[in-house]
Amino acid sequence: MHDLVSIRDLGKKDVEAVLSEAARMEKMPPKKSGELLRGKLVSTMFFEPSTRTNMSFQAAAKRLGAKLMTFYPSVSSTAKGETLGDTIRMIDGYVDAIVLRHPYEGAARYAADLAEHPVINAGDGGNQHPTQTLLDLYTIKKLKGKISGLRVSLMGDLKHARTMRSLLYGLGMFGADVNLVSPSALRMDEEVIRETKGMFGINVSQTSDINLKGVDVLYVCRIQKERFQDKYEGEKMQKEFRVDLEALRGAPEDLAILHPLPKVEEIPPEVDSDPRAKYFEQAKNGVPVRMAVLYLASKG
Amino acid sequence: MHDLVSIRDLGKKDVEAVLSEAARMEKMPPKKSGELLRGKLVSTMFFEPSTRTNMSFQAAAKRLGAKLMTFYPSVSSTAKGETLGDTIRMIDGYVDAIVLRHPYEGAARYAADLAEHPVINAGDGGNQHPTQTLLDLYTIKKLKGKISGLRVSLMGDLKHARTMRSLLYGLGMFGADVNLVSPSALRMDEEVIRETKGMFGINVSQTSDINLKGVDVLYVCRIQKERFQDKYEGEKMQKEFRVDLEALRGAPEDLAILHPLPKVEEIPPEVDSDPRAKYFEQAKNGVPVRMAVLYLASKG
Amino acid sequence: MHDLVSIRDLGKKDVEAVLSEAARMEKMPPKKSGELLRGKLVSTMFFEPSTRTNMSFQAAAKRLGAKLMTFYPSVSSTAKGETLGDTIRMIDGYVDAIVLRHPYEGAARYAADLAEHPVINAGDGGNQHPTQTLLDLYTIKKLKGKISGLRVSLMGDLKHARTMRSLLYGLGMFGADVNLVSPSALRMDEEVIRETKGMFGINVSQTSDINLKGVDVLYVCRIQKERFQDKYEGEKMQKEFRVDLEALRGAPEDLAILHPLPKVEEIPPEVDSDPRAKYFEQAKNGVPVRMAVLYLASKG
Repeated sequence: MHDLVSIRDLGKKDVEAVLSEAARMEKMPPKKSGELLRGKLVSTMFFEPSTRTNMSFQAAAKRLGAKLMTFYPSVSSTAKGETLGDTIRMIDGYVDAIVLRHPYEGAARYAADLAEHPVINAGDGGNQHPTQTLLDLYTIKKLKGKISGLRVSLMGDLKHARTMRSLLYGLGMFGADVNLVSPSALRMDEEVIRETKGMFGINVSQTSDINLKGVDVLYVCRIQKERFQDKYEGEKMQKEFRVDLEALRGAPEDLAILHPLPKVEEIPPEVDSDPRAKYFEQAKNGVPVRMAVLYLASKG
Repeated sequence: MHDLVSIRDLGKKDVEAVLSEAARMEKMPPKKSGELLRGKLVSTMFFEPSTRTNMSFQAAAKRLGAKLMTFYPSVSSTAKGETLGDTIRMIDGYVDAIVLRHPYEGAARYAADLAEHPVINAGDGGNQHPTQTLLDLYTIKKLKGKISGLRVSLMGDLKHARTMRSLLYGLGMFGADVNLVSPSALRMDEEVIRETKGMFGINVSQTSDINLKGVDVLYVCRIQKERFQDKYEGEKMQKEFRVDLEALRGAPEDLAILHPLPKVEEIPPEVDSDPRAKYFEQAKNGVPVRMAVLYLASKG
Repeated sequence: MHDLVSIRDLGKKDVEAVLSEAARMEKMPPKKSGELLRGKLVSTMFFEPSTRTNMSFQAAAKRLGAKLMTFYPSVSSTAKGETLGDTIRMIDGYVDAIVLRHPYEGAARYAADLAEHPVINAGDGGNQHPTQTLLDLYTIKKLKGKISGLRVSLMGDLKHARTMRSLLYGLGMFGADVNLVSPSALRMDEEVIRETKGMFGINVSQTSDINLKGVDVLYVCRIQKERFQDKYEGEKMQKEFRVDLEALRGAPEDLAILHPLPKVEEIPPEVDSDPRAKYFEQAKNGVPVRMAVLYLASKG
C-alpha cells in the first residue's frame, strides 16, 4: 500500500492485512511502537474540521513516533488564491506522508496522483472515508470474532450518509448479512445495493421497521435534518429512528451498538451505560487502525 | 495524585510534594527530563483561550518527553451538538492524560469523574485554577525561602478574581499573614475570609490603602473594568490601584511584585526593569510546576 | 549567529556558512539530523499567516529533533491588551528559540533585543525576510553551481515587494548581474539600487521588457493588484508581466524559473511541467536552509 484513497482500491487480503496489523499495534507497548516511524514527518491537512478523525490520526502518528505537522486552511495560502495542487506539492516537499481531509469529492485521488509521498484519505466530501470503514470492520471483528455470517443492521439516513455505502461494501467483502433500516424517503441508492449484492453475493434486505431480533450489530447514523426543506419532517423522522432504552427492550444481550460519532439525538445519553453500547470503544479503535494504515503506507 | 481538579483536594503534604518535585524539574537537564514521560500522549483541551497557561502546559509536556495533542473547540464536534461528556470520552480514548480548560464551573470535576486517564484542571470558569496557585506558592517560596510568616498583600479586584481566593487558601495553608487591598466595592467575599482564618488560624486584614511598608510580597491583579456598569468608575479605580514607580517609592527593597499576567494598566512598563518586579520569573515557573503536576499525575 | 533579524546583519562568510550548513542538512539522514537539537524547545510565533514559511520552519525544527510549540495570536493575550514585549518575554521564558512573524516593521529587532534566547525573523512586515533570501541564494547556487557572474532577472512588482530588495542585496554580495523587469510604475526604489551597486560594484539594469535571451535565472513575483486604486490597471499589468509558455518561447534551455510562492496568475499552471520551472524545488529548499539557520542560531 502506498496511498489509501478508497476502500475499493483494497482487496480482501489488503483489508485483512490492515486489520491484523491494527491488532498488533493495539497490543504493542508505546515505547516499541514509538520506534516504528521514528524520523518520519507526517502532515495532516484538514480543509474542513473533523475532530475525531483529526485527533485519532494525530494520536496514531505520534504513537508511531512520527513527527507531526498540522496544517489548517485558516492559516493557508488558499486565501490568496493558490490552487489545491500547489498546496499539496508544497507540503509534499516538506514531509514524508500526508493525511488529507477535503470537502471536494476526488480531492484525495488528485492529491495522491500529484504527491511523491503517500497520501491517506481522511474523507473527501461525501465520497470516501476509508479509515472509518476499516475501523468499523476492525471493531466488528474484534467484538464478534468474525464478520462472515453476522447479521448487521445499518440504520439512519442511508440516502445521504455515503460512508454507509463504503461500510456496506466492506461488510459485503467479508460476507455479512446486511439489513438496511431507514425511513422510506431516506433509503440507500438501489444501484449501490444491487452492485454490492452482485459482487459479493450477500443478502441485503431493506425495511423501515426497527426490529432488533436476531441482530448481531446495529450501526446507527444520524438523520441529517438540515437536508430537509421541512425541518419538522426531519425532526419527526429522527424521533422515529432513535435508539433509546425503549427501542432496545427485547434486543439480543450480545448486540453491539456502533455509531461513527459524534452522536446527538439518535442515541440518547441513557444508552451510554448499557453494556451493548460499543461506540466509545469503536472510536478508540480509530487509533490502532490508523497506526496500521500510516505504518503500512510509509513502509510502501 | 491522579487528577488535579482543585487546590482544596490537596493536603499540605501534597502541595509540598508538588513544590519539591517542581524544584527538581527546574534543575534537571532537558535530556534527562525528556525521558520521564516518554511514550506518553497528553492532550490539551482548551475550550477558551488562555495563552500563558496553554503554552506553559505545552512546554511542560514537551520538556517531559511526552507527545502532545492540542485540541481547540473551533475544530470541534461541539458545533454539531456533541455533549462535553462525549468529547471527553473521545479524547480519553486516544491519550494518556488530559489538560482541560473550560469556561464552565465544575467542568473539570465532571471530566475527571468521566475519564479513565488523569485530568488536570487548567481553569474552569471562575472556579479553580490550581496550577496557578501552585506556581504562585512555588514562586514565593523560591524567592523568599519560605512562606510561613511572610506578609503578603493581595491587591486589585478581589471580588471577581476568584483565583485570589485559591491563593488566599494556599497562603493560609502555609501560614502567611495576608493583607487584602482593594477598593471597598471590590472586597473579597467575607465568608471566604472567615473560612480561611478558621481553617488555618492566619491573620487576614483588609484595607483600601496601598501601603507597602513591611510587605514581603505584593500580588497584583487587574481591575476587571468590563464588570462595571459605569465604565468611568472602573477606570477611576484602576488609576488608584495602580502599581507604578510612584507607588513603589518607600517600598521595601526586597519586596517581590507578582502578577498572574497578562498585565495591562495596573502595572505600567516602567516597573518591568525594577529589580522588585518578579512577574516574568513567576510566569517562567509555570513550566517546572506544570511538569511536576503532569509527572505526578501520570505516575498515579 | 545568535539572532537572525536581517540579511544585512550577515557578512558574506556568514551567508556562505548558512549555505554550506544547509547543503549538509539536506544530505543528512533523518535519524542523524533528528539528534542535533534534541531536548531543545522552539516556538513559532506567527502574528500573521504565512503558510509556507510557517510549515517549513515547523518541518525544519522537527527534522532537527527539536520540540515545537506553535503560537497563534488568535489564542493570544494580545486581545486583552498585552504588549508585544510582554508576550515575547513570556514565550522566551518557556522555550529555547523563537521564530517570529509579525506584520510590523522592526518587530523582529525589538524581540531579539528583548529575548534571552535566539530570535529568527520569519518576516516583519514589508521589511525583512532573511530566510527567504537565504533559500533563494541556496537554490540558485545549487541549480547553477555558483552565483557570481550569473545573469539574474527579477520580475514583477519591484516597488512593493520589498523582499526583492533583500534578494538584490544578496545577489550583489555574491556578484551576480541583475536585470530588474517591471512596469515602469512599479520600479524598485532608485536609492536601493544605487546603494547595492555602490556596495558591491555589480551591474544592475532596468527594463519594462520581458526578454529572456541569455538569462540564467528568472525570479518572478506577483503584481500586488490590491495596491492599485484602479483595479483594472493592476490586472492589465499582471497580464503583461505573466510568464506563460508563450513568454518562455526562445528562453534558454537551462533557464531556472523561481518564485517565492504562492503563485496565482503570474505563472499559469501550464508552466509547472516545464523542466525550467524550479519553484517547487525552491520551496522544498526552505527546509534544509531553515534547519541550518535554527541549528546555527541554537549553537550560538
